[in-house]
Amino acid sequence: MPDPKPFPLDAWYAAAWSHEIGRDLAARTVCGKDIVLYRRTDGRVAALEDACWHRLLPLSLGRLEGDQVVCGYHGLVFNGDGRCTFMPAQKTINPSACVHAYPVAERHRLVWLWPGDPALADPATIPDFHWNDGTEWVGEGGTFYGLRCDWRLVVDNLMDLTHETYVHAGSIGHDAILESPFEVTHTDRTATVTRWMIDIEPPPFWAGLLGKPGRVDRWQIIHFQAPGVIAGDVGVAPTGTGAPQGDRSQGVNGCFLAALTPETETSCHYHWNFVRNFRRDDDALTRAIQKGHVNEGKGVYDQDHVVLEAQQRAIDRNPRMPFYNLNIDAGALWARRMIDRMLEAERGGRHVPSQAAE
Amino acid sequence: MPDPKPFPLDAWYAAAWSHEIGRDLAARTVCGKDIVLYRRTDGRVAALEDACWHRLLPLSLGRLEGDQVVCGYHGLVFNGDGRCTFMPAQKTINPSACVHAYPVAERHRLVWLWPGDPALADPATIPDFHWNDGTEWVGEGGTFYGLRCDWRLVVDNLMDLTHETYVHAGSIGHDAILESPFEVTHTDRTATVTRWMIDIEPPPFWAGLLGKPGRVDRWQIIHFQAPGVIAGDVGVAPTGTGAPQGDRSQGVNGCFLAALTPETETSCHYHWNFVRNFRRDDDALTRAIQKGHVNEGKGVYDQDHVVLEAQQRAIDRNPRMPFYNLNIDAGALWARRMIDRMLEAERGGRHVPSQAAE
Amino acid sequence: MPDPKPFPLDAWYAAAWSHEIGRDLAARTVCGKDIVLYRRTDGRVAALEDACWHRLLPLSLGRLEGDQVVCGYHGLVFNGDGRCTFMPAQKTINPSACVHAYPVAERHRLVWLWPGDPALADPATIPDFHWNDGTEWVGEGGTFYGLRCDWRLVVDNLMDLTHETYVHAGSIGHDAILESPFEVTHTDRTATVTRWMIDIEPPPFWAGLLGKPGRVDRWQIIHFQAPGVIAGDVGVAPTGTGAPQGDRSQGVNGCFLAALTPETETSCHYHWNFVRNFRRDDDALTRAIQKGHVNEGKGVYDQDHVVLEAQQRAIDRNPRMPFYNLNIDAGALWARRMIDRMLEAERGGRHVPSQAAE
Ligand code: FES
Ligand code: FES
Ligand code: FES
Repeated sequence: MPDPKPFPLDAWYAAAWSHEIGRDLAARTVCGKDIVLYRRTDGRVAALEDACWHRLLPLSLGRLEGDQVVCGYHGLVFNGDGRCTFMPAQKTINPSACVHAYPVAERHRLVWLWPGDPALADPATIPDFHWNDGTEWVGEGGTFYGLRCDWRLVVDNLMDLTHETYVHAGSIGHDAILESPFEVTHTDRTATVTRWMIDIEPPPFWAGLLGKPGRVDRWQIIHFQAPGVIAGDVGVAPTGTGAPQGDRSQGVNGCFLAALTPETETSCHYHWNFVRNFRRDDDALTRAIQKGHVNEGKGVYDQDHVVLEAQQRAIDRNPRMPFYNLNIDAGALWARRMIDRMLEAERGGRHVPSQAAE
Repeated sequence: MPDPKPFPLDAWYAAAWSHEIGRDLAARTVCGKDIVLYRRTDGRVAALEDACWHRLLPLSLGRLEGDQVVCGYHGLVFNGDGRCTFMPAQKTINPSACVHAYPVAERHRLVWLWPGDPALADPATIPDFHWNDGTEWVGEGGTFYGLRCDWRLVVDNLMDLTHETYVHAGSIGHDAILESPFEVTHTDRTATVTRWMIDIEPPPFWAGLLGKPGRVDRWQIIHFQAPGVIAGDVGVAPTGTGAPQGDRSQGVNGCFLAALTPETETSCHYHWNFVRNFRRDDDALTRAIQKGHVNEGKGVYDQDHVVLEAQQRAIDRNPRMPFYNLNIDAGALWARRMIDRMLEAERGGRHVPSQAAE
Repeated sequence: MPDPKPFPLDAWYAAAWSHEIGRDLAARTVCGKDIVLYRRTDGRVAALEDACWHRLLPLSLGRLEGDQVVCGYHGLVFNGDGRCTFMPAQKTINPSACVHAYPVAERHRLVWLWPGDPALADPATIPDFHWNDGTEWVGEGGTFYGLRCDWRLVVDNLMDLTHETYVHAGSIGHDAILESPFEVTHTDRTATVTRWMIDIEPPPFWAGLLGKPGRVDRWQIIHFQAPGVIAGDVGVAPTGTGAPQGDRSQGVNGCFLAALTPETETSCHYHWNFVRNFRRDDDALTRAIQKGHVNEGKGVYDQDHVVLEAQQRAIDRNPRMPFYNLNIDAGALWARRMIDRMLEAERGGRHVPSQAAE
């Protein structure tokens, strides 16, 4: 089994898409914590512990009244700061009666939540997810709620695209991925894997988007921000038109986006999008790309899920078997190291026995 | 998690309705014990451990032969006292071969069972449930088998009717419940919560039963008998006709009945009825009242179950979070104290860390 | 709960029927070990650990390429000996990269697998299952995969046929089974229970097969080979025609076959057949006999499964209750003793607290 709570708490995680949080009570579990989310009348999002102070009934089973939540059992009322403002059949309110209010902020069409120490929650540290804001790039993603695997397995998955050759043969996979060298760079909280495949046949997905015959240069530049955000700058351009040197004007460019949120030790929410900066008004293309990713078990991401959940089941059944690493794991290992370092910092420096050790 | 075995064993619990036990083998789990029940040819009920002495096969998978049970695997026969009277292919019977026979007694249309020490089982201590016997009061109840919550959560639920306002708004709920004072009295094994709501608009359920216009006095007198029986004397009468002073002749009077039986630490059987002492021959009314309580998720009790099971799940997920108490919990706290005291007595006086502590 | 791993590992177990293993990857769990089976191009069966060396993905989710398995995640390739022969994006292969290869052999239409120490795997010790090879005896059996009981409960079940009287009344059960003496003999690795019922009315199943009126001599000679193979020589002949003395020529003779394979501590695979040495070309009879055993819950074996799984659930719920034994258990006790002795040998002589102790 993975070490208990294999996720940093002092971090911003995507808890929902902005459009999902309105004047209903929405329940989410983030890092093992049950949370109820709703939008106040002034538009601000509130995020409260989803267990009534009195008898633990999930507040999400109650109802919203103005900016406050009324518990569905005995009617305790809590405001958006988690403070109890009404108790049935008594005049004085126990001043300690409250539920935890989680720091929360909206940015780039997502609601970000800080499950850890509120005093440390600085909105300036919300990960950069600007590709998702619907302006320069467009796309319609979604969320896989409750994917049954340790969230870090998704990090591994996205930080190495070699798997495309095997998991996604026929759409985006390509032997060239195996043969092309790649480079890993990193800063304190980010890691980047860069791979250029020069003068190759484009795989079907990209050939279709490019709409021009002939060989291409293909790039995959995967950018990780600790603990759980990944943006993959991917595309192709006709070979010889200078893409590797920086001129992508003849090519097509997309970006796959992942905001990963631990739900429990062995499940996660995977907020995803695939955006592009060309043919931005082409809604049919937007829908086709979405369907290519999620399509009743046949999309690219559906294929990944089968692998990820099977991998988790195998980990559960082989608790002591170590992971072995290949050269292709270099990017994932940097990402894991950063996550481990955050865990160690939270635990006062105690060493975290990493699953990413070589 | 609740403390292990949060139920007294030396107590009478309802195991079934009398009409459910006949010449078939009926399996029940009471206080974690698997039990098979059947009716002897002379009409007396037998209750045996539901695991064959030989190889543990549930005896309820066998068959009844006269007054004895034949195991469905290799044919051992047990009489109603649990003694083995036949072994296949051998002449002598191991004299120690027997299964436990539970003290059992029928009263008020229920079969009461004593899961603890048989030497202590005194039928004189079977709880008073006379409202259920079909004479002075009438009604058709039933049993929720395997309700997925600690049985004591149902005690809490029934000992405080404030929740009607929130869980049952639109039928029996009423803001007056919140505003009216109540009184709690108790004896050694009973607790009573009394609440009078004077000169109020009757809620829809009661207005319909009363069939007279105008304001009413409403009463809720909830009577608890340890460990798990509750009878709630409820009704309304036109205000000013003397009900608070004892003359209910102008009103209508019902009684909700609950005989709660722990199944496991976190599940229970809830034998219920709602009886009345007026329009006793009106079968359509009987059915309408039954349907008001249980109606494919829309009845009053169905609403309670959603809350109770959600509460149990929350307790399971928040094992160390204490319960906090409000004034409205006074009746439930007395009930809990009596249950705790029974547990302590069974455990030789060791203190039971109560979930009901203030 | 049963002692952990209540099965010897150094033993041959049936893992599949030969016809089930072809050019697809077949997943099986044997003694708690996940295994992928396939047939090489030269016809030999390979059996590998079903967890990739790299990141544990079950190899059974990959694909077969010639005689090798390609992992479905990042493309590591393993040959039938479990050695890695290809790693993506790197020239040198880590020499330690391999998965366990299990000794495997085909015999009597079954694939036999050795989950323990490969150095000890001697095909000469594969149990005798010749009745199943389709020559002298015919029949069409099958496998109950994942029967939810400790495999040893099936051994108990088959080593004592007294249960036929109770579980299979109306087909093969008969009171004579109870009344007839039986004899148990044993060698180091086998035990045999012999029971003759002389001059009895044949039960319906056998009366139909014999096709002659009148009373019969019936035999049940059950032969156990440790750890999990049972062959039951059963039949009837007209009484007085000399069957007990060895002349079965006037009778009909069948053999029930069981190759039991632990899946987990509390589940097993039950490879079964019922073969006969008469009317061998009568396919309708073959199908009728198969249907008599397995028929959507109404066959003889279906009846056993209800009992076996109920018994396991009872064991799980009564962890400390001992098993008591009757005279009829003598054969099962010898079988259990042999299993216990194998377990002790594997554990370096440490005593195994047997569930078969008297
Ligand atoms: S549980 Fe919320 S008010 Fe009682
Ligand atoms: S299990 Fe009941 S007689 Fe064997
Ligand atoms: S898990 Fe098999 S190659 Fe990576």
